[in-house]
Amino acid sequence: MLWRDLRAWQIYGANTDVGKTIISTILCKALARRAPKNGLLYLKPVSTGPDSEADNKHIARHASGVVAKCLKQYSQPLSPHLAAKIDDPNHVITTRLGKLSNNDRLLVQQVKEALNLHHNKGGRYAVVETAGGVLSPAPSGSVQADTYRPLRLPVVLVGDSKLGGIATTISAFESLHLRGYDVQAVMLFDIPRWGNAQYLNDFFLQHDVPTFGVPEPPEKHQHERQDRDQLAAYYDEVSSSTSISSAVQLLHHKHLQHVNKVTSMPAHAESIVWHPFRQYGLPQNVIAIDSAYGDYFEAYNQETDSLLNTSEEMSTNLQPLKPASPAKPLLNTLFDASASWWTQGLGHGNPALALTAAHAAGRYGHVMFANAVHEPAIDLCYNLLETLKNPRLSKVFFTDNGSTGMEVAVKMALRATAQRYGWSNKDAETGILGLKGSYHGDTIGVMNCSESSPFNEKVDWYKPWGYWLSPPEIKLVKGQWQVQLPVDDSMPRETGPVTLFPSLKAIFNFDSRHDDAEFYADYITRTLQHLTQHQKRRFGALILEPMIMGAGGMIVVDPLFQRMLIKTIRENPSIISPQAAALESSNSADWSGLPIIADEVFTGLYRLGRPGSSSFWNSGSSLGTEIDVAPDISAHAKLLTGGLLPLALTTASDSIFRTFVSDSKADALLHGHSYTAHAIGCSVANKSLSTLRDLASTSGSVLALSEPKSSNASAGGAWDDYRSSWLSPQDRDIFSFFSPETLNKISKHPLVDSCFALGTVLALTLHSSTSGYNSTAAASLQARLLTTLDEQDRGVHSRVLGDVIYFMTSLETNEGEVRALEGTILRALDEESAAKN
Amino acid sequence: MLWRDLRAWQIYGANTDVGKTIISTILCKALARRAPKNGLLYLKPVSTGPDSEADNKHIARHASGVVAKCLKQYSQPLSPHLAAKIDDPNHVITTRLGKLSNNDRLLVQQVKEALNLHHNKGGRYAVVETAGGVLSPAPSGSVQADTYRPLRLPVVLVGDSKLGGIATTISAFESLHLRGYDVQAVMLFDIPRWGNAQYLNDFFLQHDVPTFGVPEPPEKHQHERQDRDQLAAYYDEVSSSTSISSAVQLLHHKHLQHVNKVTSMPAHAESIVWHPFRQYGLPQNVIAIDSAYGDYFEAYNQETDSLLNTSEEMSTNLQPLKPASPAKPLLNTLFDASASWWTQGLGHGNPALALTAAHAAGRYGHVMFANAVHEPAIDLCYNLLETLKNPRLSKVFFTDNGSTGMEVAVKMALRATAQRYGWSNKDAETGILGLKGSYHGDTIGVMNCSESSPFNEKVDWYKPWGYWLSPPEIKLVKGQWQVQLPVDDSMPRETGPVTLFPSLKAIFNFDSRHDDAEFYADYITRTLQHLTQHQKRRFGALILEPMIMGAGGMIVVDPLFQRMLIKTIRENPSIISPQAAALESSNSADWSGLPIIADEVFTGLYRLGRPGSSSFWNSGSSLGTEIDVAPDISAHAKLLTGGLLPLALTTASDSIFRTFVSDSKADALLHGHSYTAHAIGCSVANKSLSTLRDLASTSGSVLALSEPKSSNASAGGAWDDYRSSWLSPQDRDIFSFFSPETLNKISKHPLVDSCFALGTVLALTLHSSTSGYNSTAAASLQARLLTTLDEQDRGVHSRVLGDVIYFMTSLETNEGEVRALEGTILRALDEESAAKN
Repeated sequence: MLWRDLRAWQIYGANTDVGKTIISTILCKALARRAPKNGLLYLKPVSTGPDSEADNKHIARHASGVVAKCLKQYSQPLSPHLAAKIDDPNHVITTRLGKLSNNDRLLVQQVKEALNLHHNKGGRYAVVETAGGVLSPAPSGSVQADTYRPLRLPVVLVGDSKLGGIATTISAFESLHLRGYDVQAVMLFDIPRWGNAQYLNDFFLQHDVPTFGVPEPPEKHQHERQDRDQLAAYYDEVSSSTSISSAVQLLHHKHLQHVNKVTSMPAHAESIVWHPFRQYGLPQNVIAIDSAYGDYFEAYNQETDSLLNTSEEMSTNLQPLKPASPAKPLLNTLFDASASWWTQGLGHGNPALALTAAHAAGRYGHVMFANAVHEPAIDLCYNLLETLKNPRLSKVFFTDNGSTGMEVAVKMALRATAQRYGWSNKDAETGILGLKGSYHGDTIGVMNCSESSPFNEKVDWYKPWGYWLSPPEIKLVKGQWQVQLPVDDSMPRETGPVTLFPSLKAIFNFDSRHDDAEFYADYITRTLQHLTQHQKRRFGALILEPMIMGAGGMIVVDPLFQRMLIKTIRENPSIISPQAAALESSNSADWSGLPIIADEVFTGLYRLGRPGSSSFWNSGSSLGTEIDVAPDISAHAKLLTGGLLPLALTTASDSIFRTFVSDSKADALLHGHSYTAHAIGCSVANKSLSTLRDLASTSGSVLALSEPKSSNASAGGAWDDYRSSWLSPQDRDIFSFFSPETLNKISKHPLVDSCFALGTVLALTLHSSTSGYNSTAAASLQARLLTTLDEQDRGVHSRVLGDVIYFMTSLETNEGEVRALEGTILRALDEESAAKN
Repeated sequence: MLWRDLRAWQIYGANTDVGKTIISTILCKALARRAPKNGLLYLKPVSTGPDSEADNKHIARHASGVVAKCLKQYSQPLSPHLAAKIDDPNHVITTRLGKLSNNDRLLVQQVKEALNLHHNKGGRYAVVETAGGVLSPAPSGSVQADTYRPLRLPVVLVGDSKLGGIATTISAFESLHLRGYDVQAVMLFDIPRWGNAQYLNDFFLQHDVPTFGVPEPPEKHQHERQDRDQLAAYYDEVSSSTSISSAVQLLHHKHLQHVNKVTSMPAHAESIVWHPFRQYGLPQNVIAIDSAYGDYFEAYNQETDSLLNTSEEMSTNLQPLKPASPAKPLLNTLFDASASWWTQGLGHGNPALALTAAHAAGRYGHVMFANAVHEPAIDLCYNLLETLKNPRLSKVFFTDNGSTGMEVAVKMALRATAQRYGWSNKDAETGILGLKGSYHGDTIGVMNCSESSPFNEKVDWYKPWGYWLSPPEIKLVKGQWQVQLPVDDSMPRETGPVTLFPSLKAIFNFDSRHDDAEFYADYITRTLQHLTQHQKRRFGALILEPMIMGAGGMIVVDPLFQRMLIKTIRENPSIISPQAAALESSNSADWSGLPIIADEVFTGLYRLGRPGSSSFWNSGSSLGTEIDVAPDISAHAKLLTGGLLPLALTTASDSIFRTFVSDSKADALLHGHSYTAHAIGCSVANKSLSTLRDLASTSGSVLALSEPKSSNASAGGAWDDYRSSWLSPQDRDIFSFFSPETLNKISKHPLVDSCFALGTVLALTLHSSTSGYNSTAAASLQARLLTTLDEQDRGVHSRVLGDVIYFMTSLETNEGEVRALEGTILRALDEESAAKN
């Protein structure tokens, strides 16, 4: 909600009865002098109490030329949630922090439409007054600062001038601040005896928020007529005072500052930021994100801002502005369809996560972790292992991101094999066994765990150390599910390179795929024998991204192939080292053959609908991981903090851990970053994991991880609709937020080669003459999606990987939003098709 | 403030006049029934208004057997800061968020002493009632939730039961929560018409905080006697109601839960956490940190907790407890003398940083950064370059920690040299030129930038690629400053391996050290010529940690040597590559010979008292860096966020940046982590850098970075006292928080070989038969410091690196705290000495 030519503010009060409407009236009168007739809209979205006493009537009475409206007037002078319930006994009240209901969305949409309408009529100012205090409940039951947050209008906070009002005003400010609002000014009655205005003036300077004292209104006169007259005189005098002029000037200034900041960001970025993965020799449009909420960015796109630098619009002149053809809003609402590089889980601007982060910062800041420990870190270790339900794991190591988490995983595994097989790190090199298309991060150590690709080939110290097998891939092609053997013919098969399946679920029915399993095992055995016995190569770890290799281009791997790779190595350790068999332990949880590392950074923690993505290797339907295919080491990041800030965990089995135990310090795992296990990250991760677990839980069936819904079991799980659109009630663990119907349609689209969906991920491979990362096939569709708008004027911000374009939701995206996104994708595909013909 | 046998709570009110004292009385009466006589202390630290109406008198009147005290009664019924000013016109009021004044510290100390005294007398309960609302000013002017934060007593929040009270109660909760308090219960009058108790009960369940409704007290009776009687009856009835019993039971339960959590942390850590750098085969004491504030941890140390598992103390029995000999407090206050692994800058639990983090979380969450940008990230780029004042730098790249920041630096430099000198990454290896003892992080790529050491030698993929010169070191030995040439005789000198200097400052007077400069240049030239011409070795970067190599053992390098290394390579590029001279550009900001990388992760951003540590290479006294020794690339982390959470920046000159510009995507710097430039980190870093700049600014002289103090220039800079203890007013940029007198004393101590101090760092090398990381010489002193207490019963938590023990303050540590720390260190050294003899 930002325009060059319409300035809108939201008035919040530090408490009920602090003079919000009086100060709004003063502000409206002062602004109206600078506006053309009807150029100022006063909007009271929700009002309670008798209609005759409504605030909009007060404004209309005292500020002429102002359009004063109320969207909803409830009859009882109570908190809006109670007033709404009295007027409509069927009204539903919910209180979940930061989780907006349909009632909230509707209210926000109505305010948005009122402001847009006003803008389209040439309006120059808008003042939106809230009801009660900052966190008073909206009719829905949500606290109203949450309800209105998607608009993020700049705020004028009306302070509390009574005894105790210093405390309530600062707390109200803090509640707004932690919800991402910009409080641009504090205004309150100046009552010298209590000293609030003076104290708050000093205090808020630290936050760069100016405070304006306003003279108290006259005592109520006993006669209505005189009362109205003395109030009118008060309004006339105060609204033209120098103090209020300064306030208005300041608000203008902050508006301009915001517009300047937003519109200059792309140029500033160009001059000083070195962006990741950006080739500065190629043209590129940088999008400036002003804020984000839920699944959506509020973003400024230089390319679509036609009015850049028109001087009239940017005028600092406080004289009345001429009505003119209105400028477009500066900010576009865009669905964050890369889930902000695969991180987003619980929505942008989530106040529960913001508060959790703030609590940890307030309780600890960061406290050192070497030989020290704190509650959020310990809780997180238990929380993660409980979530993963991998029977092999017992230890948790902390780092900062997926790449460092995988560096630690590699250090763990290489030491284990070197120790068991008596290899020294001084002689022959030990490599990694993996799959073609894998990718584990951008630090050089883990870059070396992947085959050469455009991501790493120009890095000077990059050296691929290992061997990478070509995996069979899962695709939906023209409505037909299939497993495709690699095109390089390394794995030829009599019946041809493609096997057809009646459904996605059928591919996961390993029991019915006995022949495939044997075929894979045979191929794997022959390949490994050739490498280790013929070529004398050494391997130190098997690293797999379960199900999907993301950075490699959203390659969906047949999980049966990954399963057979693990089982073949574990059951025939001598395939890795001739001495292996004799060294094996009888403990079934010990690693065998090679330590198996699951890189679940992208795929794990519910991204694909399951707590741990290694569980897709199960033959049964348990969401924990069967011991014979469970990894010995796994790495977790991204969704771990719900999409808020960096943190990574590497887990290990006891058999891996014991490798590092000796009486020499130098044998320890000497790896640690300064902010290892930072309390904010751990606290937010605990909150995220428990929220994700609640979201994933189902009703009516007993799954390994389902937990009883708090007192409301019959309401069903949050993802029940997604599950039921894919599956029968018995197998609810292979499903997507995207519907099978849409997926089917997309697969048959003429621009699309193949597609896939699982959990929150949808990936499309487009027709292209050059495939892979260097292809530009998807770029044009990506650009089109930015301006293909849904019914609420929202576009889509997506990311591409060469010829692949993908879409991802958060774990809290509701069905309406997903279906709207699907509609936009289908429409953009059609338009793209039409444009090409 | 946690004991097994004393349970203490602090009562905060959501606003003034919400019934805090009435509910405190009820709670006191209910608790007193469970306590021995005089076993409950009611404490009102600050009270305003007539003495006869004081809350402690009300309590004494209505709750018999309670010890009711007030520490300070002001005569006027106003906000305490105004009341204090009226009673004492010289009283000073300050309003800086989270920055406690001496008045605050004194008040906290008094409360602490009162509670300890009560505990020592066998007290079992304490109720500490605050004044006004949660954020009402304390007498000092600080908001009281900040003032009392060092105690972090568990909180009972008295909610506001009036219309609007839902908002004020939740905001008050949020203000406490973001300051790290544990709100254990909310209690408020239940007035069904407003529905507050019901709403808040639902709402706070999300925060796991139970809410208790309390019947309203009777209307005030006109006769005093009857009023007192009806109030007494009300108290009797309510305090024995089942609802209040539940509340008391819950508070007991939460106390036990806290004690259990704290005392079980070491064992839980042992079972599930894999700690960084820990050798599990050696005994190790894990310290559990319950919270932290300013420079201090509140920590539980299993080894000093004598009463572990005594059943009487842990009883859940609500019957009166027998007075017994009191148990020691469970938590020890420890100075965080490693600055939590070198990160801490602005104090633990800093509410300004917590609020900044929360605002960014609320406005953005994390938003993706590839081809996108947001305000905090752009501001931070400008902010950093403005801070560093390095004339070469123009671009900023984001990663997550020092190690990844250095990976990026290395990728930048190697590409630049490979491109200019026509080297391919496919043939001969290009190494790093550096110093012995350097260390740049734990990811494998940057591990390879350092010589073999206990940190890396067991890492399987570690391969030292480069050559490391032995640097001359600065030491204070027995009161004598000296520069010592390397012991390995690689740099022999006629006058012997040690040069003496009259002061630390004299070492930095490069103009007077012409002979040393020539000697260094000659040695460097010969060495490099031998390597490149004779041995045909290739180097891709010179990497230096300015002044101090931290992880390598706090090795203090003669900055003149680093200066000459840079100048020699820059002025004689052909020493690196024969073709170099012809390829040099005439632009003096272009890199020459080798890209120079400054690893300022530990030393930069004011850790050593200067904004950028490369400026120690200057011959002049400017705090910016001279262009001829300014690095082409620098890495920054740790203090960047003031000590709150991970973020790293790598800067580069335009000449480095241009290396990556082409028309091929694969030539771009393909490095990026999921949370690259996360908004929380950037926002907190902006806040930290501006706060650090304010702290560093001086008054009375014009330094490059000094800024006018806001309206108060004559007050002087925060570090003026530190500076003046070291220097004459003209050269105020080589100084330490630690005093020269203490340093001198330490250097002469029989246990100490040598020592050094600069900025916030003090390092001692102890006598030891084995030197380096594998030495255990410092471990015994380290253990002793945990229990060597200062006047306020605070010990010291320090870290050692083999035979080196070091101490570090934050950048906000005041002189009193530093001097107290110095006293403790000297005392511990003496006791250690005595114990050895």
